[in-house]
Amino acid sequence: MLEARFGETLLLKKIVDALKEIISQSTLDCTETGMQLQSMDNSHVSLVALSLQTEGFEKYRCDRNVSLGLDLKSLAKVVKSASGDDAVTLTAADKADKLLLSFESDNKSRTADYELKLLNLDQDHLGIPETNYACIVQMPSSEFARICRDMSMFSESVVISCTKQGIKFSANGDMGSANIKLSDTSKGDITIDVDEPITQSFAGRYLNTFTRATPLSDRVKICLAPDVPLLVEYPIEDYGYIRYYLAPKVDEADA
Amino acid sequence: MLEARFGETLLLKKIVDALKEIISQSTLDCTETGMQLQSMDNSHVSLVALSLQTEGFEKYRCDRNVSLGLDLKSLAKVVKSASGDDAVTLTAADKADKLLLSFESDNKSRTADYELKLLNLDQDHLGIPETNYACIVQMPSSEFARICRDMSMFSESVVISCTKQGIKFSANGDMGSANIKLSDTSKGDITIDVDEPITQSFAGRYLNTFTRATPLSDRVKICLAPDVPLLVEYPIEDYGYIRYYLAPKVDEADA
Amino acid sequence: MLEARFGETLLLKKIVDALKEIISQSTLDCTETGMQLQSMDNSHVSLVALSLQTEGFEKYRCDRNVSLGLDLKSLAKVVKSASGDDAVTLTAADKADKLLLSFESDNKSRTADYELKLLNLDQDHLGIPETNYACIVQMPSSEFARICRDMSMFSESVVISCTKQGIKFSANGDMGSANIKLSDTSKGDITIDVDEPITQSFAGRYLNTFTRATPLSDRVKICLAPDVPLLVEYPIEDYGYIRYYLAPKVDEADA
Repeated sequence: MLEARFGETLLLKKIVDALKEIISQSTLDCTETGMQLQSMDNSHVSLVALSLQTEGFEKYRCDRNVSLGLDLKSLAKVVKSASGDDAVTLTAADKADKLLLSFESDNKSRTADYELKLLNLDQDHLGIPETNYACIVQMPSSEFARICRDMSMFSESVVISCTKQGIKFSANGDMGSANIKLSDTSKGDITIDVDEPITQSFAGRYLNTFTRATPLSDRVKICLAPDVPLLVEYPIEDYGYIRYYLAPKVDEADA
Repeated sequence: MLEARFGETLLLKKIVDALKEIISQSTLDCTETGMQLQSMDNSHVSLVALSLQTEGFEKYRCDRNVSLGLDLKSLAKVVKSASGDDAVTLTAADKADKLLLSFESDNKSRTADYELKLLNLDQDHLGIPETNYACIVQMPSSEFARICRDMSMFSESVVISCTKQGIKFSANGDMGSANIKLSDTSKGDITIDVDEPITQSFAGRYLNTFTRATPLSDRVKICLAPDVPLLVEYPIEDYGYIRYYLAPKVDEADA
Repeated sequence: MLEARFGETLLLKKIVDALKEIISQSTLDCTETGMQLQSMDNSHVSLVALSLQTEGFEKYRCDRNVSLGLDLKSLAKVVKSASGDDAVTLTAADKADKLLLSFESDNKSRTADYELKLLNLDQDHLGIPETNYACIVQMPSSEFARICRDMSMFSESVVISCTKQGIKFSANGDMGSANIKLSDTSKGDITIDVDEPITQSFAGRYLNTFTRATPLSDRVKICLAPDVPLLVEYPIEDYGYIRYYLAPKVDEADA
């Protein structure tokens, strides 16, 4: 039996929002050590991986591994109906065909219980190899979201260049071109860690969907290395992280 | 001649908003004792009744009964154009073919007068018999609105069960099911008055249109009895009330 | 070479917003004394004229006259991407085929440069004769915007009547009629200067597009004279103004 309690529904809401634009259905694997979800996006180009450790939960118990096949749009609807500061408990039997979500307000006079039907999903898990990234940039997640949005006005492709001096985002299209440069600042807003400089090109619309995770974290980590997918990571305090992977565009990456 | 002055346009705005999603045209009957409107919704399933007593108005004078055939969308447009804190006076002649709305701001330098053409509407008045309701529940109107909205995600039908222990709203559909229970609380937020327990099923989309009246009142009163329509009443302070009636679904009500 | 620096991007944003609903492309003429733009709207009914004097700019240098053919939708997108309080510098070469916009935040760690392709536009400049207006009304720009919007609910035409007693806006349509009167007030919110009374009729949808300039100025000046276009002027503090011209409707103007 699984029983997992989030102190605030708002966090679950943000997690679901960060997933639901990218994947419509996915399996949440629950074990003694926490919850994991891994899935290619609907068009099989990017990959999203969620990891929630038991430490973050107000209560967590999972006697036996259980895989929950979720329809994320349905889950989003249910979660949206709760107040952000309600607590929410997820409960499922060992061989569950439904997930129970129980919301509790501070004022105990109201209880709201939702049963969501579970799906039977085939799902291959991709091994994600450990990578030594050539460049690691940490920056405010809101700034990254804004840059991704601005680049999309100019072109479908975004070129990311990273050197010891800073990180540059560029887009070039019919309307003109855009260049936004960020440099390491004394304030520590942006930290740039470069072993070797790198320039790669990415499909902007995937970057934009990744930024749906912005409300989950003030900071985002961007990791680049030659010939491996870009990693964009949003830490989730106490719980773990949500990570997005996107392969560089081959024909434009050798700038 | 009719002359009726609302101290705040905002109230008239809320009343029109509470009506205009349900009925497109209706007759406002004005007499010495106040204003009455009664109408089936556009699909002839539910009934709305508005009663405004003279006590609420800043000024009220009606020498002779007059019936005003209103197009509610047009009235909504006019009322929307005013500032909420303007005063508004409605004026009509004894055999009026138009209604004059005069808005006055505190700063008297601005006057806005609108003439709305009146409609000739046939309208039967249904006698609504006095009912001894088996269950009467009073609760915050915002909570009722939220529950109606949440139930609609799951099913077209909402089951309302009321016992001495509390009131329960349930919906059951393809996605799963929802149950929200409210109990009598010491805070007095919710009061439940039960002669005999009752369970009835209703079409959720009508309940949702009733909740357009939420801005009119912090509280809503829900009254149930076997074999009679549900009554949902929003009191309008000093003036009277707006009431909605909806018959239970026959085939599902015997749970 | 042109180099023009706005202390706040927000101002440029408001200027572009005031233009882009009316004209899709236009030439910005830059000279030693400032920037001028003049253009008929897309349907060739009204005229907009923008004048920005060098005094307003934080920095202004224009060695040689240069005409910049702008696509206003593209410019709007670029400007929208900046923070309102960033400074922005416009740079163009003497025979430019592109305009460079450089945004600088207080925190110098971020630079954003956009290059917009310029267009080759034919453009005739209309001489606008000096006019002694019969009526000049100054009023809060937000009030004018609200009146124009309200009138549009009733009719395509708005009648403006101006006498020493005040200014009146009227519209008459299928739904009914609207009359809004403003009088000279002691508070000085509205000033009315009348040589001879005048009544003219205008196409409301043009008036509505003019009100896109409302954020540029708290005040608007409305100038009327027989047989000449209405002038609606929004002053732009320190810089100059944006002016809109619209000819009265001939068949209805002789009220």
